[in-house]
Amino acid sequence: MQPYGKAFGLWRKAALTDNDGLWDAYTRHQFVEALRDGTLPLASFLHYLVQDYVFLVHFSRAYALAVVKSETLDEMKVASATVNALVNIEMQHHVTVCASHGIDEKTLFNAVEESANLAYTRYVLDAGYSGDLVDLLAALAPCVLGYGEIGTRLAQQTSANNPYTEWIETYASDDYQYVCKEMGELLDSALERRIGSDFQASPRWQRLTDRFITATRLEVGFWDMSLKPNHKVA
Amino acid sequence: MQPYGKAFGLWRKAALTDNDGLWDAYTRHQFVEALRDGTLPLASFLHYLVQDYVFLVHFSRAYALAVVKSETLDEMKVASATVNALVNIEMQHHVTVCASHGIDEKTLFNAVEESANLAYTRYVLDAGYSGDLVDLLAALAPCVLGYGEIGTRLAQQTSANNPYTEWIETYASDDYQYVCKEMGELLDSALERRIGSDFQASPRWQRLTDRFITATRLEVGFWDMSLKPNHKVA
Amino acid sequence: MQPYGKAFGLWRKAALTDNDGLWDAYTRHQFVEALRDGTLPLASFLHYLVQDYVFLVHFSRAYALAVVKSETLDEMKVASATVNALVNIEMQHHVTVCASHGIDEKTLFNAVEESANLAYTRYVLDAGYSGDLVDLLAALAPCVLGYGEIGTRLAQQTSANNPYTEWIETYASDDYQYVCKEMGELLDSALERRIGSDFQASPRWQRLTDRFITATRLEVGFWDMSLKPNHKVA
Amino acid sequence: MQPYGKAFGLWRKAALTDNDGLWDAYTRHQFVEALRDGTLPLASFLHYLVQDYVFLVHFSRAYALAVVKSETLDEMKVASATVNALVNIEMQHHVTVCASHGIDEKTLFNAVEESANLAYTRYVLDAGYSGDLVDLLAALAPCVLGYGEIGTRLAQQTSANNPYTEWIETYASDDYQYVCKEMGELLDSALERRIGSDFQASPRWQRLTDRFITATRLEVGFWDMSLKPNHKVA
Repeated sequence: MQPYGKAFGLWRKAALTDNDGLWDAYTRHQFVEALRDGTLPLASFLHYLVQDYVFLVHFSRAYALAVVKSETLDEMKVASATVNALVNIEMQHHVTVCASHGIDEKTLFNAVEESANLAYTRYVLDAGYSGDLVDLLAALAPCVLGYGEIGTRLAQQTSANNPYTEWIETYASDDYQYVCKEMGELLDSALERRIGSDFQASPRWQRLTDRFITATRLEVGFWDMSLKPNHKVA
Repeated sequence: MQPYGKAFGLWRKAALTDNDGLWDAYTRHQFVEALRDGTLPLASFLHYLVQDYVFLVHFSRAYALAVVKSETLDEMKVASATVNALVNIEMQHHVTVCASHGIDEKTLFNAVEESANLAYTRYVLDAGYSGDLVDLLAALAPCVLGYGEIGTRLAQQTSANNPYTEWIETYASDDYQYVCKEMGELLDSALERRIGSDFQASPRWQRLTDRFITATRLEVGFWDMSLKPNHKVA
Repeated sequence: MQPYGKAFGLWRKAALTDNDGLWDAYTRHQFVEALRDGTLPLASFLHYLVQDYVFLVHFSRAYALAVVKSETLDEMKVASATVNALVNIEMQHHVTVCASHGIDEKTLFNAVEESANLAYTRYVLDAGYSGDLVDLLAALAPCVLGYGEIGTRLAQQTSANNPYTEWIETYASDDYQYVCKEMGELLDSALERRIGSDFQASPRWQRLTDRFITATRLEVGFWDMSLKPNHKVA
Repeated sequence: MQPYGKAFGLWRKAALTDNDGLWDAYTRHQFVEALRDGTLPLASFLHYLVQDYVFLVHFSRAYALAVVKSETLDEMKVASATVNALVNIEMQHHVTVCASHGIDEKTLFNAVEESANLAYTRYVLDAGYSGDLVDLLAALAPCVLGYGEIGTRLAQQTSANNPYTEWIETYASDDYQYVCKEMGELLDSALERRIGSDFQASPRWQRLTDRFITATRLEVGFWDMSLKPNHKVA
């Protein structure tokens, strides 16, 4: 069902069934559904794009931290490739779309970061600094893989003249899905290396699940923020 | 006027006059004034104490990071002493007061951390991880020194039968004021060592000021959160 | 037999029996035996004290990193107390002894760090940065606990007029042995929390053992360096 | 004269004239001259290649840390590109050459790291963890830019039938020289951003120079180690 590996399947289920449908609150958020049916106001979309660009700066820093915390060659290679994918697929998509609306890259980089945005990326970074690679990956996973799931579903449900088709196709694309597939495999192999193949039985498992849940909550907060173009900044 | 050194004086002024009175929005917040005149609802105070305990866990981690990032013996000594002061003056005060209201220490340590709380401490930690000691100190300063200023003022303005006298006296105490004085001196000496005595002229100065401003904004968000005992958690 | 807990007992045994007597190469090194029988040249001892002071600066930074990486209140408390013990028991002992030989504290702090010294502390720090708390503790353990074992044995075997009695008594003292006992308990509880009570069965166990072994090798290198007062610096 | 920017020119000069010709001790080391004239024993070369591969693993981790510590988009882009260059130009060259001598990549990745090797990379990593981006870059520079200088000189002085031509051409290549040029520009711009254009006048300058000098000393130690195929490991 979930094409992104065993750990993601378990965490996704925990976020869905043990936390009052939190996974749906994130992946089927009002903002996402308005992207799907094309009714999202452009102001909200641009507000989102600018904040998401700042998000990606710090999220890319967090992925670079995964290279620092790698123990194997395969871990280093996947993490490095993902940093590249973030910069080249995701950030460049933002730059292109924003440029078409008169917002240049320096403006994007220097946009004032809202509190819900800051909370999310700094939580992910500290998960990495304070723990090991799997603590970091558990906090990175909801964004990478949730967007993969959203992209896949919206590509199936959207209509031809949806103004947000390009956004949807970015995350539904083979390139992005490949990143997700590699991330899922990295998650499983990093967990097996550090905890063993029966990783759900580890005393760490609940805390790793909590990291995934907290990051998913912060995703919901990010969509909430994105809907409000005049939200008070912090 | 400000007894906590030169850098703090400059940053405090920037927060007050260049940012629409942000410093007063923090140090004269509705929550603070309700502590001063004793009208703060107990539920708000306990909500604050529990969240502030979790805050202090991560704030102490950030201060321990200052030991890791010290370059001189004096920097190490002051940072180590402040970690101790946080644990022994501040955290123990919370434990005692909470215990008198039936909340034990394990409950405090494991309380669900709200988003405004998490945003603040993780921002401070990442300031340290991504920069050097002065980046970290600029983000730590508004909390340590702002509470010193609040404690001093409230001790002068409160009345004898205020139920929050113990809280006020904690931050007005000679012990806490000594921590503030040492922090102010550490700030100035760390800046001089890394940037020079004319540190306001450095290209880094505006970015360090921005760190102080962002942390002050996150303090305002913390008081806002504290006023709402049923605030949605994240 | 070993009073410092289960994990230390297992790692000590691995260092002794699976690595050609490495544990004895460290704890019964020529330098240690010359301290025991009082034949160590004063020049070697002073050379050691100066390098060990610089070692303790960075080792204290590494212990402060353990506070940053703690997940429980008990972990934070023990790590904070140990930072204090390092600064107050160990570093101050060095300062006093060196002062009696005309070497002041600023000189100690700024001494040129030799390569074998630098290799050790930076390895320990990176074990913490790249892994989680138990990676860091496995690299910290050989120094803290090995000195505890050396101190205990030498106090039993030394004679009354040994010029190195004060050094021996520092590590044989109840205060230092208490630090060792707490470190041993912290090790076991941190391992149980993250890996489970059967921690030897974890896929991480061999890599954690490797960290302990590498740090023990670096201890041998430190004694080798200490014997040579005119060793080329790096 | 030095094509890699202003800061490198100043640091190179300090290493050459203020430290007893240290820069030449590194870039004209007996190992380098034996590469130049083709007299280096193959056993030494292979010993070097294996250790250098392990070096590059941790050096790549350190460059990934530069992404984590970047403050601007340009800093992120150059640091990311350099991580790629390390993995794709340098590490792959090692893999190819070692494979032709029967040493596979997993063997390379898991080779026992010698003490002189470990000392160097962990020093660089801790320079980054404890300081800011310019502390890290000062410790990274001697390796990246020294190899660029060695490659350029050896390409001019070597003869056609030198068995080490491929190694020489790797570092003399336009691709590698481009990495060096970008690194030199990154150094200068990162210093200007944090310290100002007159960065030599800063109180930090001497300490940054010390980082460059220490890393250069550790390069000399690396060549010394490489000459001894049966060097005791740590």
